[in-house]
Amino acid sequence: MTAMSHARPERTPVDMAAAALAGDRRAAARLISLVEAADPAAGPAMSLLFRRGRDTRIVGITGPPGAGKSTLVDQLIALRRLAGERVAVLAVDPASPRSGGSLLGDRVRMTRHNTDADVFIRSLSTRGHLGGLTAATGDALIVLDALGFDCIIVETVGAGQNEFDIMDHADTVVVVQTPVAGDEVQAMKSGLLEIADLIAVNKCDAPGAERTVSWLREAAEARGGRPSPGWTVPLIKTQAVAGTGVVELNAALDAHRRQLGSQPDASRARRRDRARILLLRRMTDMLRARHARPAQHANEFERALDDILARRRDPGSAAADLLRGAT
Amino acid sequence: MTAMSHARPERTPVDMAAAALAGDRRAAARLISLVEAADPAAGPAMSLLFRRGRDTRIVGITGPPGAGKSTLVDQLIALRRLAGERVAVLAVDPASPRSGGSLLGDRVRMTRHNTDADVFIRSLSTRGHLGGLTAATGDALIVLDALGFDCIIVETVGAGQNEFDIMDHADTVVVVQTPVAGDEVQAMKSGLLEIADLIAVNKCDAPGAERTVSWLREAAEARGGRPSPGWTVPLIKTQAVAGTGVVELNAALDAHRRQLGSQPDASRARRRDRARILLLRRMTDMLRARHARPAQHANEFERALDDILARRRDPGSAAADLLRGAT
Repeated sequence: MTAMSHARPERTPVDMAAAALAGDRRAAARLISLVEAADPAAGPAMSLLFRRGRDTRIVGITGPPGAGKSTLVDQLIALRRLAGERVAVLAVDPASPRSGGSLLGDRVRMTRHNTDADVFIRSLSTRGHLGGLTAATGDALIVLDALGFDCIIVETVGAGQNEFDIMDHADTVVVVQTPVAGDEVQAMKSGLLEIADLIAVNKCDAPGAERTVSWLREAAEARGGRPSPGWTVPLIKTQAVAGTGVVELNAALDAHRRQLGSQPDASRARRRDRARILLLRRMTDMLRARHARPAQHANEFERALDDILARRRDPGSAAADLLRGAT
Repeated sequence: MTAMSHARPERTPVDMAAAALAGDRRAAARLISLVEAADPAAGPAMSLLFRRGRDTRIVGITGPPGAGKSTLVDQLIALRRLAGERVAVLAVDPASPRSGGSLLGDRVRMTRHNTDADVFIRSLSTRGHLGGLTAATGDALIVLDALGFDCIIVETVGAGQNEFDIMDHADTVVVVQTPVAGDEVQAMKSGLLEIADLIAVNKCDAPGAERTVSWLREAAEARGGRPSPGWTVPLIKTQAVAGTGVVELNAALDAHRRQLGSQPDASRARRRDRARILLLRRMTDMLRARHARPAQHANEFERALDDILARRRDPGSAAADLLRGAT
């Protein structure tokens, strides 16, 4: 053996993509780390993997902190595994440096599946990066989509706009709620409920559960959930720790999938709407990544700022000029 | 008199701008209505007025609903008028169609100044428009800035990201709080306090006032408010209805102005940072206005969506392509 043979050549992201497609989980994990760090070197690998995409079904799970989302996900993984499915979970932690907080503690609850070769669990945190949560989440999903899982679960804490945004990646959105006191149900109505395809009322053995369910049913009937003709948002009472209601929740996920499949036109329109939102968000995130901090070298954006500060050009026409080449 | 003389020619926005500069308040109000409606016809008028801008000092006032912001503004107007100043107030209502709510009820409290020719009060609501709150607020401020007021007050309810955003227009940000219970002070700390140059604790005769003030003082000292070297965020106890503390608040506003004036470099850097944020936001709002809904005619954005849905192009490179001409 020569000294040379010890220096293994650095794998490029495209090499990693090829390895991931061949079943190398560590390569997949490394690619996700690259997109998490907004590394532009990942671009060609993303392009390759996206073309190999399989339209894997994406289930989004969101809800307030402490609602029991991770325990529910753990139960859903177990049911999917019983049915022979391969499952990937992406747990997105959108906490800004400002608000702090982390989901990583929750990940511990899914460890019983960690040694299962047909379950891939990964968390994603983009705090501090200017690249944007949409791009990182979208690219991580591109990696998972290409790897031949039967179902991808995206989980995030439902606490703000970022978390709503993450759910735009999902085909089916499950909002997890817990029984609440009278006043708080109003806040729920105006927020997460509007994006729910399914609602799980977890910890259904807690006080106020029946009342919360009937409130939610009323609200869901009034709003009708996301546009999906003929779909009535199911409310499912669960107790994730004990496993109560989890089979029903899992069945409802499949029912929603069949519903989408039975309405190809509506389903196609929904996919296009989602792609529109996600592409726009990628573009706005890109602009922010370029210009949110002063440039090293004078560029057109910095010159526009000079003009505005000197009152030579108004902000509205400067913005239009800067975007004139964009479409 | 002929029939012709009855048909007054429609004034163009530039005519209105010229009239506004000559002191015509109704012309100013009509221009603000145009920018509120995101009417592109206002563009040349904005360009004209921006060049005639006077760098009028902009004071932002924000805080939770019911904190007494409008009553405080009313008192500040009265003090400024006593000092011979001309004052404009822009009350921005960022309520989305989703969350509902309106500030307009509050406006009634300022009516005692409605007949004063040197006070201009205007509310602005952009709900339902895709054009964006930043552009509408920025353009309304351009109109007011050109009209020779001594001070412009921008008021908005501090309830979400939009309201934070509005405060980027202000030279000095006053956050109005009321005495709160123990748990709630944590929520305050992480939010509005970070943008405060001054904090008014209104309704200071309510229970918990002293404790709230000392909590806030601690939090303000820990964070130091917005970057402004040598500035300690003052905490001022007010009772707006009775007028308690309002003279002190008004004096603190002037002290902050002097502080900014005494540090021209820091002040210039702060202005550039604000201009950067506002210009970026105009650009991203413009992109959203262009593409958030399906185009009537096929364009490059819609073709990119076709490509993404057919897996011919990945979203990341599509976004980069669409922005390639932008700078």
